[in-house]
Amino acid sequence: MAQDDSKADAASLQIDIDETIARLSSKRGVESVTVLTKDGRVIRTTAEQKEGSDGEGLQGRLLSKLIRDAAEIAEQLDSQDELSFLRIRTVKRELMVALDHDYLLVVVQTPQMD
Amino acid sequence: MAQDDSKADAASLQIDIDETIARLSSKRGVESVTVLTKDGRVIRTTAEQKEGSDGEGLQGRLLSKLIRDAAEIAEQLDSQDELSFLRIRTVKRELMVALDHDYLLVVVQTPQMD
Repeated sequence: MAQDDSKADAASLQIDIDETIARLSSKRGVESVTVLTKDGRVIRTTAEQKEGSDGEGLQGRLLSKLIRDAAEIAEQLDSQDELSFLRIRTVKRELMVALDHDYLLVVVQTPQMD
Repeated sequence: MAQDDSKADAASLQIDIDETIARLSSKRGVESVTVLTKDGRVIRTTAEQKEGSDGEGLQGRLLSKLIRDAAEIAEQLDSQDELSFLRIRTVKRELMVALDHDYLLVVVQTPQMD
């Protein structure tokens, strides 16, 4: 029975990820949506990969390192506090990184001038 | 003459920093305001230092590392883009890091429930 349960869990997680990616991707200005493990392994992404580049791997590793540094700063300030969200604003874009247990959800968007 | 000019520039920069820190510190919910060089050396801070800790030095180094990682991610995504702002949200607080040429301006605040 246990093996069936874990298969069912994996399948429902997969559906969750698909629905989240579809919902976020449809929002105005969203360039890409990526789900990674906390150690930077890309599980799903809508980002286009440049030919022959390890863009996906590098970004995953960089994001994972960034989250570790930010979590360390949060803990340095207050050991009872915990990192929950990161917003990286560049001249052209905005990256939003949400932490959820073992996963990172990264949305890259071009800010809309409302 | 040149030496007097650079003294005057340094003095006016000092006044700028003092005014910026005073203005930001007076805002509701602001816990501390810190001005650092990009390589993490703290120039001025209103943050209280815990006894015997190198808190200030460590935070400076961590922030400097975080900014380098975030800038690398921005460049990885688009070599024509540039990091401008970072917002680190934790369960209890929010750190806002503004980049300005050679300096980082860091405001730590407890978000206000409006």
